[in-house]
Amino acid sequence: MQAYQVPESKGMVKLDAMENPFSWPPALKEEWLTLMSSVEPNRYPDPSARELTHSMRTCFDVNDDMGLVLGNGSDELIQLILMAMQPGACIVAPMPSFVMYQHIAKALGLTFIGVPLSTDFSLDMPAMLKVIKEHDPAVIFLAYPNNPTANLFSEQSIHEVLEASNGIVVVDEAYHPFAKKTFLPQVVDYAQLIVMRTVSKLGLAALRLGFIVGQKQLIEQFEKIRLPYNINSLTQLTATFAFKHLHIFDQQAKQICQQREYLLAQLSTLDTIQAFPSQANFILFALNDKEAGEVFSSLKRQGILIKNMSGMPGLPANCLRVTVGTELENIEFIKQLRNILK
Amino acid sequence: MQAYQVPESKGMVKLDAMENPFSWPPALKEEWLTLMSSVEPNRYPDPSARELTHSMRTCFDVNDDMGLVLGNGSDELIQLILMAMQPGACIVAPMPSFVMYQHIAKALGLTFIGVPLSTDFSLDMPAMLKVIKEHDPAVIFLAYPNNPTANLFSEQSIHEVLEASNGIVVVDEAYHPFAKKTFLPQVVDYAQLIVMRTVSKLGLAALRLGFIVGQKQLIEQFEKIRLPYNINSLTQLTATFAFKHLHIFDQQAKQICQQREYLLAQLSTLDTIQAFPSQANFILFALNDKEAGEVFSSLKRQGILIKNMSGMPGLPANCLRVTVGTELENIEFIKQLRNILK
Repeated sequence: MQAYQVPESKGMVKLDAMENPFSWPPALKEEWLTLMSSVEPNRYPDPSARELTHSMRTCFDVNDDMGLVLGNGSDELIQLILMAMQPGACIVAPMPSFVMYQHIAKALGLTFIGVPLSTDFSLDMPAMLKVIKEHDPAVIFLAYPNNPTANLFSEQSIHEVLEASNGIVVVDEAYHPFAKKTFLPQVVDYAQLIVMRTVSKLGLAALRLGFIVGQKQLIEQFEKIRLPYNINSLTQLTATFAFKHLHIFDQQAKQICQQREYLLAQLSTLDTIQAFPSQANFILFALNDKEAGEVFSSLKRQGILIKNMSGMPGLPANCLRVTVGTELENIEFIKQLRNILK
Repeated sequence: MQAYQVPESKGMVKLDAMENPFSWPPALKEEWLTLMSSVEPNRYPDPSARELTHSMRTCFDVNDDMGLVLGNGSDELIQLILMAMQPGACIVAPMPSFVMYQHIAKALGLTFIGVPLSTDFSLDMPAMLKVIKEHDPAVIFLAYPNNPTANLFSEQSIHEVLEASNGIVVVDEAYHPFAKKTFLPQVVDYAQLIVMRTVSKLGLAALRLGFIVGQKQLIEQFEKIRLPYNINSLTQLTATFAFKHLHIFDQQAKQICQQREYLLAQLSTLDTIQAFPSQANFILFALNDKEAGEVFSSLKRQGILIKNMSGMPGLPANCLRVTVGTELENIEFIKQLRNILK
């Protein structure tokens, strides 16, 4: 196993990590700092994060009948779910998908099976159902929209997976701020459904905060093994504050969606690449006649950091992934990419 | 399994959780807030926490030849260590000791064996060596000083455990700011020794920050499975800032040690209790002729929250644990306790 590697990015136009590109408005930051002055660094956080949990239930439409557990980003929640599984349990996700499903499953010594997507990046349902039948997976992860392909799987196929599975099905809605599609209302229908969200893409990546929602009986099992003080005081206070100003982040998400359409339109004018549709805040594109590594490095030399997806199983050759930035960043990216591909 | 429970404490004199009782001086807080204004909430943290790690190596004398991994408090580090163990692995700790060793081992489905301490709270070496020989534990946790008994085990016995063990031995130095004894220099001598620290007791409990140190080859195995963004941006910035002012926290630790001696002297004048010696920032005491639950509740009614240790295996009957507070808090605690025991 290798440790997860993250590249140095100081001073670069950072379009590699699905971050919201907008800084906080100065007035918002000022108000936040005033609040932060009340923090008691010497005291432990509220282990139940009651105020934050209440605020999240309101903001994200999670009613009190549903169970909810907070984690340090989706990563800790994936780990929490997988920690609860029996040794040797089988974990399934489409391939390619968010790399941490496999990374954490392997770290815990579990069996991971990646099921290749169809060439249009939809779920290969015959293959999925075959794996479910043969391996009876303890957990299936479905990123909705999927990373790095940026598409939403069809609702129908997710329902079919839910119907076929005895184990837990995690619908990972990390990119919900941009796709606005959710399986939250389906939690009442499926005892083994978990909906996972993070506030990283919404604009709070610095905080590392995510949550899972499911029926109470299921979620209680994870609450029992959650580390009691996992969400620190600074995160609790900052996130609770930010959610009072949710409209700002919602507005930014709308801008990002507009910019995504701009980027897609621009990319579609380049005949040496194929850009795939996106319901998220990033775009996957394949190069027809250049090496992805070469274009990645050329962009980097111009101060633009995107993500080289070469060698990721299940993707076309020479794919790159670009996160939607601010208008100026996107214009600069398109300009440099155009030059490089010329 | 039960979820870890933490009592409500709003408005109470909080002497239950081994927190540093001192607020930050206003000037320190002001300087910190100025620094916090530079935070970018929309960006992910530095996954390697390079600046923080550098600062911690300097402050806590961890040279670059040793491996170091950061965690969200000791809890996440205990979990990280235990996650790496084989299914069914045997985990050992003295009994009583820090409850999270057992809690996390059980959450991960591992086998936990608690070895009762001698009646003077020293390690029962024949029992320890027998368990090591019979069960070949994958991990042994030794809290140094031990919680809740507040004593340091003898250096000699820890060396004997290290000599006898094939598995990892974690020396948990959470209370190092008060005991000032460490096994850090011994890391070079023992390939399976891990020294664990937290900055919670030093005065930064809100942050949830701890670290483990060991020989590089060993620590790399844990770095591989550490979640890459586990330490959030606010913690990285705040802790790095606080460590530049380490003398303030060192000075507070000294005051706490003085207050501990005051409390011990006061408790020794009460002939209906037995207070045990302490090298930490808390004191364990046993009631000779009253119920611990009753005294705990009476103190709570007076607005003082301490910890009821009744029913903890391996302790004398009717034990209570009080964290050392400020001078005024300690005076108030002694006054109320005196009244209740009258």
